[in-house]
Amino acid sequence: MSKTNPGHYFENFQLGQVLTHATPRTVTAGDVALYNAFYGPRFALPSSDEFARSCGLPASPVDPLVAFHMVFGKTVPDISLNAVANLGYAEGLFLKAVYPGDTLTATSEVIGLKQNSNGKTGVVYVRTTGENQHGETVLRYVRWVMVRKRNPDAAAPEASVPDLAEAVAARDLVLPQGLDFSKYDFALAGAPHAFEDYEIGEKIDHVDGMVVEEAEHQMATRLYQNTAKVHFNQYERAKDPTGRRLVYGGVVISTAKALSFNGLQNAGMILAINGGRHVNPYFAGATVFAWSEVLDKADLGKGVGALRLRLVATKDRLCASFPDKDEAGVYPPEVILDFDYWAAVPKRG
Amino acid sequence: MSKTNPGHYFENFQLGQVLTHATPRTVTAGDVALYNAFYGPRFALPSSDEFARSCGLPASPVDPLVAFHMVFGKTVPDISLNAVANLGYAEGLFLKAVYPGDTLTATSEVIGLKQNSNGKTGVVYVRTTGENQHGETVLRYVRWVMVRKRNPDAAAPEASVPDLAEAVAARDLVLPQGLDFSKYDFALAGAPHAFEDYEIGEKIDHVDGMVVEEAEHQMATRLYQNTAKVHFNQYERAKDPTGRRLVYGGVVISTAKALSFNGLQNAGMILAINGGRHVNPYFAGATVFAWSEVLDKADLGKGVGALRLRLVATKDRLCASFPDKDEAGVYPPEVILDFDYWAAVPKRG
Amino acid sequence: MSKTNPGHYFENFQLGQVLTHATPRTVTAGDVALYNAFYGPRFALPSSDEFARSCGLPASPVDPLVAFHMVFGKTVPDISLNAVANLGYAEGLFLKAVYPGDTLTATSEVIGLKQNSNGKTGVVYVRTTGENQHGETVLRYVRWVMVRKRNPDAAAPEASVPDLAEAVAARDLVLPQGLDFSKYDFALAGAPHAFEDYEIGEKIDHVDGMVVEEAEHQMATRLYQNTAKVHFNQYERAKDPTGRRLVYGGVVISTAKALSFNGLQNAGMILAINGGRHVNPYFAGATVFAWSEVLDKADLGKGVGALRLRLVATKDRLCASFPDKDEAGVYPPEVILDFDYWAAVPKRG
Repeated sequence: MSKTNPGHYFENFQLGQVLTHATPRTVTAGDVALYNAFYGPRFALPSSDEFARSCGLPASPVDPLVAFHMVFGKTVPDISLNAVANLGYAEGLFLKAVYPGDTLTATSEVIGLKQNSNGKTGVVYVRTTGENQHGETVLRYVRWVMVRKRNPDAAAPEASVPDLAEAVAARDLVLPQGLDFSKYDFALAGAPHAFEDYEIGEKIDHVDGMVVEEAEHQMATRLYQNTAKVHFNQYERAKDPTGRRLVYGGVVISTAKALSFNGLQNAGMILAINGGRHVNPYFAGATVFAWSEVLDKADLGKGVGALRLRLVATKDRLCASFPDKDEAGVYPPEVILDFDYWAAVPKRG
Repeated sequence: MSKTNPGHYFENFQLGQVLTHATPRTVTAGDVALYNAFYGPRFALPSSDEFARSCGLPASPVDPLVAFHMVFGKTVPDISLNAVANLGYAEGLFLKAVYPGDTLTATSEVIGLKQNSNGKTGVVYVRTTGENQHGETVLRYVRWVMVRKRNPDAAAPEASVPDLAEAVAARDLVLPQGLDFSKYDFALAGAPHAFEDYEIGEKIDHVDGMVVEEAEHQMATRLYQNTAKVHFNQYERAKDPTGRRLVYGGVVISTAKALSFNGLQNAGMILAINGGRHVNPYFAGATVFAWSEVLDKADLGKGVGALRLRLVATKDRLCASFPDKDEAGVYPPEVILDFDYWAAVPKRG
Repeated sequence: MSKTNPGHYFENFQLGQVLTHATPRTVTAGDVALYNAFYGPRFALPSSDEFARSCGLPASPVDPLVAFHMVFGKTVPDISLNAVANLGYAEGLFLKAVYPGDTLTATSEVIGLKQNSNGKTGVVYVRTTGENQHGETVLRYVRWVMVRKRNPDAAAPEASVPDLAEAVAARDLVLPQGLDFSKYDFALAGAPHAFEDYEIGEKIDHVDGMVVEEAEHQMATRLYQNTAKVHFNQYERAKDPTGRRLVYGGVVISTAKALSFNGLQNAGMILAINGGRHVNPYFAGATVFAWSEVLDKADLGKGVGALRLRLVATKDRLCASFPDKDEAGVYPPEVILDFDYWAAVPKRG
């Protein structure tokens, strides 16, 4: 048996299969500092221990996206090493805040399989669960990827496509234990906009632009222990028509999320990921811009509301005109991300 | 009201106005590690907890420039988002050492306003104060920037230019609480040179050179939560005659300061910033060199002296001949920084 | 006397001379996070505090290579600032695990000197010792470098070449205090391969490839406070025939070591460095690949075995055919590292 990991091919997955992912990872203040350096977020809760304490938390929680990227990274060697494309996310829920010192592990269950008509690839649906050192579920989400078959003659499994929610229901959202926005300091957080100020249908151009360099996305992706070859192996990528290393989609999510501060200053904390698609590839050197749309609102109590937001990111294209898919669902080539999430936001009280 | 921050224009500032800046920021060991990775400083006090304890401190203090950059970063969205140029610093004083775990907040008071004769811009003088979580002032400094008017027809305010000290007086310097250099280990710190060995007028070529890459200055500037567009937004910068992202001046200060170790091995700890000007722009890829001049000396007691130093940095030009401004005050194009500060240095005892 | 460090020239070294290196350095969780971002290692022991505790340690130890690079960096200003080439390592032994919060200092003893026949350079052999804040030896190793003479007419010292072991004897290997692999979780660590599964003579292609960018090696090398000019000073390097900044050899070691996870998932912890040579220069932008050969095996008790491994790294060349030196000992130009070490590995028990 080879000692190197060849990854799983489509025919290796079975419905109901549970995969335990390596490597457990203790999250530290060093990881948080790097996250800040990669993306430049300015949301108050993960930035200041004092601010977090004034909101009922013991200290600044780690940004939920850090936990997401760490857990996602662990799944790559088992799920997507032979993936052709990362197709989407759904039913992502953050159930427990992560603090520096916590150790994350991950498992995935195969919840769907569908061979493509070409017989060469298939779509694998997994529900991934991240746990902390106490065995508590920190987050879980579904993603689906198109995976190569090693043997095109391998029999197709019975097609099974999971029934995924269009969005996480507001009643299923879970606030970090202790969170209380009743004494939220809007001035320190950077803007007066509260839950009440956002309207369903409202669109916000986040104005600012940010370049991601090769060194930056490589360092971020390594930090998450994500081993997908397309991000690091230029020798192989030179054979691709683009000739370029592809930036990990999570880097685009975190970059766009950090840009969204300008307009969503108090909606920093992600509670759920309803869906997400990397609709065009992003390569280092282009400038990322972003806009958001308010899709829904919900009152969660304790001075906390939730906004359901759609975050759209572009490359080398300003967002003043809110570039979007057309009626046929086709995205302009400059749009790179369409991401749907719930975020906590203080009520005016 | 737009939810994105348009920044303040010249006509929005009023004499005596106090601005509370977002976002509070807890400084951690992760920030310190990144500072080391960005600049490569080797001064013993912020490098070794043991060394710091042998000098009477509870642990390694965070380099004062980290605190400076963090506080400076907070002021950008309110003060200099619409700035044409960052003109200078004065009366910078470090009053309290910062340790990992401390949380910094910042406020600024407008202490001067002067519209330019072109009617399109004006100079804004602010005194910025950084505080820790105990409400203690950690540092304060004055800076002045040239800011655009949004409406050229807005009335000019009565001109008011503050009377700024040419340098912080030695008697106003404050040592970190507990600092005692009487048992300073010169061998471990890297050089035998003490307060007594430096003479007023002495010039030192720091010899070493250091390139700053795009990824490095972007990461540093994001870490400081500095949002100035010129550092990150290549799409917009492509329209500038230089076509380049501009490196945050603080990156140049910290790079030159780290280079100054070679000759100022025991003068690492900044106590005050007397003045500073970014006299030419610096773009990533050029090699930074630096030289220093001893401007003044003062005995502070407890085995500690202070050197008033002028730190001059160049790009792609060696400093053996101490490149400097001419008699008319004009700098060669390779000179990028002229920075005047007080540093603590051990006496031979 | 100049206050800048000119470094030592060959004629400045004396047999038996002991050099105390600046600057003491406290290792933190921030350094560990950066190490992860630079190289992307996935070995479980330094990744997870929980995993380390399940192996009898109080927390995740810092990767021994972090300690090595930190100690190595300190020696550069005194040993190799005027070096023409770093020729080799031998007799490297890790004696005490390093944990975040430990402070490292370094000293070197000159154990050999031999002037070259050209009269312009000579080889200096030093044994370097790294200590923690308790005065315990953390690691020691021998390296030899070719150093310029400042004055070609300086008398040659009596030639003295130390008798260096071809490899550290297995009986001299020291496990981190408390280490016990009897409950090692192979699934969490990422592979089932135990000590018993590796055979002497076995070769493993690690498959994956990794680019190192200029920003990445500069940041890593600065983090180690390594001041060698060739890594940072592009202005001077432009005069070199290559015109390029040279990547610090330790970056290549750590990159190849991280790649070796794919095939040596459970052999992450280095116990000794038997030898090592940077056989060709590596410049940023090329893709690093690696392969390993099992040279020897030893049972160390407590469920722990040791593998003596040879780690060979290439640039822009796949390792499926195990590119190696020829019978005359000449390496292909794509081979950049030949590194020989002992690593701890769990027995199946």
